[in-house]
Amino acid sequence: MSVKSTTLANVPVLRPLLPAADRLLPYLRRIDDARVYSNWGPLTSEFEQRLEQALQLKQGCAVSASSGTAALVASILAVAGRATPQRRLAIMPSFTFVATAVAAEQCGYQPFLVDVDAGDWMLHPHELAKHAARNDVGVVIPVAPFGRAVPQAPWKSFRDRTDIPVVIDAAAGYEVLERDPSATLGEVPVCVSFHATKSFAIGEGGCVLSRDAQVVRKATRALNFGFVESRDSRSASINGKLSEYHAAVGLAEFDCWVQKKTAFAEVSTGLRQRFTAAGLAHRFVGAPDVASCYSLFVCADLGEADAIQRALAATGVDHRFWYGLGLHRQTHLREAARGPLPNTDALAPRIIGLPMAVDLSSDAMDRIVAAVKGGIADAG
Amino acid sequence: MSVKSTTLANVPVLRPLLPAADRLLPYLRRIDDARVYSNWGPLTSEFEQRLEQALQLKQGCAVSASSGTAALVASILAVAGRATPQRRLAIMPSFTFVATAVAAEQCGYQPFLVDVDAGDWMLHPHELAKHAARNDVGVVIPVAPFGRAVPQAPWKSFRDRTDIPVVIDAAAGYEVLERDPSATLGEVPVCVSFHATKSFAIGEGGCVLSRDAQVVRKATRALNFGFVESRDSRSASINGKLSEYHAAVGLAEFDCWVQKKTAFAEVSTGLRQRFTAAGLAHRFVGAPDVASCYSLFVCADLGEADAIQRALAATGVDHRFWYGLGLHRQTHLREAARGPLPNTDALAPRIIGLPMAVDLSSDAMDRIVAAVKGGIADAG
Repeated sequence: MSVKSTTLANVPVLRPLLPAADRLLPYLRRIDDARVYSNWGPLTSEFEQRLEQALQLKQGCAVSASSGTAALVASILAVAGRATPQRRLAIMPSFTFVATAVAAEQCGYQPFLVDVDAGDWMLHPHELAKHAARNDVGVVIPVAPFGRAVPQAPWKSFRDRTDIPVVIDAAAGYEVLERDPSATLGEVPVCVSFHATKSFAIGEGGCVLSRDAQVVRKATRALNFGFVESRDSRSASINGKLSEYHAAVGLAEFDCWVQKKTAFAEVSTGLRQRFTAAGLAHRFVGAPDVASCYSLFVCADLGEADAIQRALAATGVDHRFWYGLGLHRQTHLREAARGPLPNTDALAPRIIGLPMAVDLSSDAMDRIVAAVKGGIADAG
Repeated sequence: MSVKSTTLANVPVLRPLLPAADRLLPYLRRIDDARVYSNWGPLTSEFEQRLEQALQLKQGCAVSASSGTAALVASILAVAGRATPQRRLAIMPSFTFVATAVAAEQCGYQPFLVDVDAGDWMLHPHELAKHAARNDVGVVIPVAPFGRAVPQAPWKSFRDRTDIPVVIDAAAGYEVLERDPSATLGEVPVCVSFHATKSFAIGEGGCVLSRDAQVVRKATRALNFGFVESRDSRSASINGKLSEYHAAVGLAEFDCWVQKKTAFAEVSTGLRQRFTAAGLAHRFVGAPDVASCYSLFVCADLGEADAIQRALAATGVDHRFWYGLGLHRQTHLREAARGPLPNTDALAPRIIGLPMAVDLSSDAMDRIVAAVKGGIADAG
């Protein structure tokens, strides 16, 4: 007896695609020849140069790291050092991935969670006035939500006015930095992740970017045991070096980057067209507003969010709340100090991460939009 | 005008050799097929299984990490958690690489530096009695000097007797763990580095090993943002995940490991024979006493050490003091709390790291031993 199966394959929320082995091979052969495997070998240096070129930065204004989290730690150590009893807090939005808090804790800071703007989902310096007046703040970490552009100028001005160091967590932000480096890059260090889930991806990796080469130099030292040009440890540090293997993936990713961006843009356009046809264009958030690796749907309320999640699950379409329900809902951070978080509480459970991939099929796009539409109808 | 050059090529202190690109290729093609690049993908899981097999550990008793330092941080968080004002010190030997202190600081501990035994260059529990009686010790981190075996039993007994958590830093210790897992592995977590400079090397990488699978599970959680089987962060953490690319290098390194050990052993034998012929066998320290990647010469006194360094430099033979002059001589740690350090002060400047490589030539070996012999003659 056979039963005809009509079950469709699941649509995963993310299916990364990094450069194929054959693209890596010429770089790997260079590693074979040089016999240098980490500690800023030739490929890592070349990868940093390509970052600087792509982001219109001068030499010495980009340093690679083993992860976006390592980049954050190095930047915090570079501009603020380890926490002290007098400077024990790191102000950050609750609406972010947990890495922001994890990096601050590694430097000894206690996260102090604040709310984001309801419109653009990020911190703004003027809203921080009352928190920044505290005298125990050691660092402020604005976050680029889903890779959205965080402007440099207001944060540089905040730092200059308050003397509180600032580090921008732009984990998913590589694309907007590349598109508008003059507005998004400056003296305040910006940290990027190249994790597999990001648009520009090398597996595990990240970088620190600053137009102040001295900050990048300090971050470099913090990424390698406090060493600079000798084996004397001169400051608080981690081991956050990018290996030559990951630099090889990064160089190959640069080689394929234009095609990858095009592929992402086509999928994003395909989804937007379908949401437009369904009368839901204003609820869909994708590139170029956020990073290409995200396809987000903003639900009207919790009831609708529940109904859409049920409809997605019923048709085998995966989804994810990329930032959970905010840091304050993470078990590890439930005792963290915080301000009022009404916007985070209202936004976090309503922003559903839908599937995205460079090769998301037309059929999958149809299923995604149909499920969202069905969920809204169920909720209505 | 041309001048005939008689300058010999420098002999570098270390010239690592990791698996060639063609050895990696079959594993990289598996990455292409799976499209999983980090977060414990299939290759990382297989690498951890091969570690468990090689070390005669049960399933779930080894977890990979992005570096030896990350492995240390994860182990400290697993058995001791972050420092508290009541448990603020991490006891460690001053005679170690700076990563030991860096890892403790990342978990909020202040290093407390103690002396090593003059004979085997490591900490012993009975010598710690007076320090461990302090009530502000949060963790003790014995170190396997140059990969020398640290026995488990006395440290487990110390931990059980004092209730002070212990983490063993066996950064260079993979070979002795493999050779004698019953004596060197147990419940007390052991942390290994697979940095390019180590015998078993994958570029950047490491692992945590413990016969207590619960400790390994906690370390795994600490290596991935506090997540286990959900995206809820449940404990202090870092991002210390090994990528699939480094797992590929690790699997290829396992494929070549028997040949690599043989090549190392031949060089070690070659050096030992030459030192024996020079009447200096008792001053040479190499495998199997320490890890294969080290070739050490113990000088009689500082005058001889200076003379040997000069003689090495004069013939283009590089050397390195792998642990510097002890942690207390590092700029960043010069204010660190400490006990008396007479053995460290006497040993550190006398243990010269000589060149070592799987393909160190006979000519290079001759030059190394001749330079050491010449230095001793000069000092005499």
